[in-house]
Amino acid sequence: MLTINRELFLKLMDEQARIGGTPDGGVSRPALSLEDIQVRAWFRDRIESSGLTYHMDGAGNQIGRLACDDPDAKTLLIGSHLDSVPDGGRFDGALGVLAGFAALLAIKESAYTLPFHLEVINFTDEEGALQGMLGSKAMTGQLTREGLQSPRGGYSDLLNGFERLGITEETVLSAQRDLSSLLGYLEVHIEQGTRLQDAGLNIGVVTSIVGIRSYWLHFHGEAAHAGTQSMEKRRDAFWGAAAFVGRAREYILRDYLPGVVNFGQIKLTPGAFNIVPKTASLAMEFRHGEATLLNAMERDLLALAEDSAEDFHLTLTHEYVSDIAPAPMTPAFVDAVETAAGRLGLSSTRLMSFAGHDAQSLAGHTQSVMFFVPSVGGVSHNPREYTTPDDCVNAANVILHSVLEIAGLR
Amino acid sequence: MLTINRELFLKLMDEQARIGGTPDGGVSRPALSLEDIQVRAWFRDRIESSGLTYHMDGAGNQIGRLACDDPDAKTLLIGSHLDSVPDGGRFDGALGVLAGFAALLAIKESAYTLPFHLEVINFTDEEGALQGMLGSKAMTGQLTREGLQSPRGGYSDLLNGFERLGITEETVLSAQRDLSSLLGYLEVHIEQGTRLQDAGLNIGVVTSIVGIRSYWLHFHGEAAHAGTQSMEKRRDAFWGAAAFVGRAREYILRDYLPGVVNFGQIKLTPGAFNIVPKTASLAMEFRHGEATLLNAMERDLLALAEDSAEDFHLTLTHEYVSDIAPAPMTPAFVDAVETAAGRLGLSSTRLMSFAGHDAQSLAGHTQSVMFFVPSVGGVSHNPREYTTPDDCVNAANVILHSVLEIAGLR
Repeated sequence: MLTINRELFLKLMDEQARIGGTPDGGVSRPALSLEDIQVRAWFRDRIESSGLTYHMDGAGNQIGRLACDDPDAKTLLIGSHLDSVPDGGRFDGALGVLAGFAALLAIKESAYTLPFHLEVINFTDEEGALQGMLGSKAMTGQLTREGLQSPRGGYSDLLNGFERLGITEETVLSAQRDLSSLLGYLEVHIEQGTRLQDAGLNIGVVTSIVGIRSYWLHFHGEAAHAGTQSMEKRRDAFWGAAAFVGRAREYILRDYLPGVVNFGQIKLTPGAFNIVPKTASLAMEFRHGEATLLNAMERDLLALAEDSAEDFHLTLTHEYVSDIAPAPMTPAFVDAVETAAGRLGLSSTRLMSFAGHDAQSLAGHTQSVMFFVPSVGGVSHNPREYTTPDDCVNAANVILHSVLEIAGLR
Repeated sequence: MLTINRELFLKLMDEQARIGGTPDGGVSRPALSLEDIQVRAWFRDRIESSGLTYHMDGAGNQIGRLACDDPDAKTLLIGSHLDSVPDGGRFDGALGVLAGFAALLAIKESAYTLPFHLEVINFTDEEGALQGMLGSKAMTGQLTREGLQSPRGGYSDLLNGFERLGITEETVLSAQRDLSSLLGYLEVHIEQGTRLQDAGLNIGVVTSIVGIRSYWLHFHGEAAHAGTQSMEKRRDAFWGAAAFVGRAREYILRDYLPGVVNFGQIKLTPGAFNIVPKTASLAMEFRHGEATLLNAMERDLLALAEDSAEDFHLTLTHEYVSDIAPAPMTPAFVDAVETAAGRLGLSSTRLMSFAGHDAQSLAGHTQSVMFFVPSVGGVSHNPREYTTPDDCVNAANVILHSVLEIAGLR
């Protein structure tokens, strides 16, 4: 059975980790930083010296191409990102790019002929030092000129980064690819959680990348003297908010797992030791991979907040903050990954991705799937992030056999 | 039966309310502001033109004295304060000063001879525009030079105020009175709550001014990605804090009424929509009039916080913030007020004062008591504060008959 070159692949994983490497074993390669530019030069060199065609698009996405004989064939993309968060780990993103690269090399050197072009891709700025999923959004035409004016990391950092790489706003905005030329997208990533580790499984096939919806909930009561106003008469806004936090937690645990809810911030006004809170403003974020269930969560959480407010003689208002739609993966591609894992004797499960990835940009535009391999302790965005060599090799082999499966070759 | 001069007294209440009066019917006379200086001039004039001896001590406390025949007799003080919070009401403080003044005038013009000197007093800065209970603390020797360096309202405001009145730090710090010369202290105040109104009672005799203890409680968990960390694995610091808020409320309602607890502030760190809170820091303040019960509340609340932390796999640390001891009123004086009310055909109850008053400074230094009359809706520190003319007159008559009762005259 065809497998990737384990020794070469693990050597490449080590090499990349030395570029922008930190003393604690992590890497620090924010998008378009000098370290990111360095790792890009290294990756270009690896591609070219392997005899693959190298190309960088207008958004800085780096592409290594293994063309098939039919010039009109579609293209299957395999990728992830080589940028990292500041002081991040050496597996997040890099594993996906190099597993894809190793799979390309294995196919190139094999007797197999694919009915489609195969490309490995390093997407620009997945982590968001500049904007977040910049490269994958540019490629699928999801960037606007207005959106680029106020990026997450600041406009001048964005332009400085572009200049460092030799791209411009214009080239980024015109980097959209002819989507009809794409066959699909494959990505492998470390889990960033412990579901695989806890269950002792090798592969987690993602069925959906979760949607994320967020609100400010405002509980309104009445400010009062914290001494003279009796407990029975208080309309303490915090009482309602605190009760809601507890109830929402129980509700999600009971009815909506693996959905999650988080209350990451709360502000009480006027906010003094000796004044009964008049207003409690609660930051609520909830996630689910299925749109219907995400909608149901929203309906139930808002109703529960209303009930909690009423129970304490408060009123509730809410303020919509943001909404990212769930990105379901393509069933045929999910099946392909599962079949590939099985062929390799690896155990697998289906799960949702609770974090965003480039596959989220691709889904809906072309057939897409991603899968996870275990990350010890679920550590993520941290130099302590660790995935065993065997799991890294499994990642690359499952990519390889997913490609063969999609190609109908076994 | 001797009563105060209703017409004169209500006229004085109206006159004072015009000094620093606000368009909405309230008064704004922060301590030693121009408006406070004006009302002081007016009060001095009222005292002097009534034939009482006027005196201002080194802390700016204004005193009108009705001396008895025995120069070695002790002195009974009746008072409160003419300063207000910014944009406050016209009854808070002023009622106590003018009810005392009306009682002095009634006795002066009556056939009664008291076995003690009687003084009406306007204490400086009860509300704390400068420091809080400044005059009553100065008189009882509770101020220190260090304490005056960092007053609540800022040091330069304090010195500017002193200069406006013609006093200095030195005179304030040497304003302590010979406490052995005092027989006791009587004060009437509007309730700042609705217990009297709710029960349809005329007079609330205070048995104790509550002690106030405060803490920062820190619940420690683990920060985590609000998506990838499953609900079951989270150690969300907010979960423990929110559960504790609910439980503490139920606990006080069940075991410690009329004690109160307040959580006026909470800070979550790191404090983002998409990060599970690592730390929840909760401002806790609780009050009770009896020292043993205040201690029991403290023990139980801290234990409950520990339990709540444990239930969510968190740890708890606490940080002591402040402690004001309960000030029990003198039983003989409590009886005197109750008897006086009964003699006037007024209904009364015993209760605790859940806010601080000048009587708190005096208690422990001389026999002290205070009592409340109803305030409509419990409104306080607000221009809408309202006490009916009848209740104001009751306040003054109960002061008058309490004095007679203490004097053994009926």
